[in-house]
Amino acid sequence: MMTTQELAHAFTELCKAGKFDDAGKRFWSEDIVSIEPMTGEMAMLKGRKAVEAKGAWWAANHEVHSISVEGPFTNGEQFALRFALDVTPKGKARMSMTEVGLYTLKDGKVVEERFFFGG
Amino acid sequence: MMTTQELAHAFTELCKAGKFDDAGKRFWSEDIVSIEPMTGEMAMLKGRKAVEAKGAWWAANHEVHSISVEGPFTNGEQFALRFALDVTPKGKARMSMTEVGLYTLKDGKVVEERFFFGG
Repeated sequence: MMTTQELAHAFTELCKAGKFDDAGKRFWSEDIVSIEPMTGEMAMLKGRKAVEAKGAWWAANHEVHSISVEGPFTNGEQFALRFALDVTPKGKARMSMTEVGLYTLKDGKVVEERFFFGG
Repeated sequence: MMTTQELAHAFTELCKAGKFDDAGKRFWSEDIVSIEPMTGEMAMLKGRKAVEAKGAWWAANHEVHSISVEGPFTNGEQFALRFALDVTPKGKARMSMTEVGLYTLKDGKVVEERFFFGG
């Protein structure tokens, strides 16, 4: 089984290459929980299918100009990534935003991803 | 009681001003738990006195050239900060490092700080 460091680096390399879907396919647990800092039905999703559907929805509703990824920052069974996004949400103005993703591992898989939005 | 956003911003403003001790004095719970990504006695400290002692040890053993603070990144009862440090540890070479601090709130106080080290 990969160590936290090894898994974090492999996951991060895929993200830095823009292969977010591949990172999920390879490393998400079937029971992945995804937590966003918002209210409503997107706030917490459970299970690979629901989280993949969120990713597909996001991709269909955002024009991505660039996403830069910094990290991983590691501690125990967790690692964090910092994202800087330059995107145009469908029907809205182009925007820059930063966020932190916190990933929790168990048995060599990501069992939780939790996102924090910058101000 | 301050909201997570309000507390996170007040805490962050003190850190951005270099007033890390003041941030702790004002916002740490008496039962603050501090978790570092290392082994040994510094890995997990419990209680304000122990965490203050760690801060004093760190200050006495590092010459700080600059610390920049980005954030806060918020979600629910937690917020994250990104630190970029330029320091010289006592007797060692000057070094740059990045880390993420994750702060967990309860009843208007920081009950846990957890640090993640960049690669």
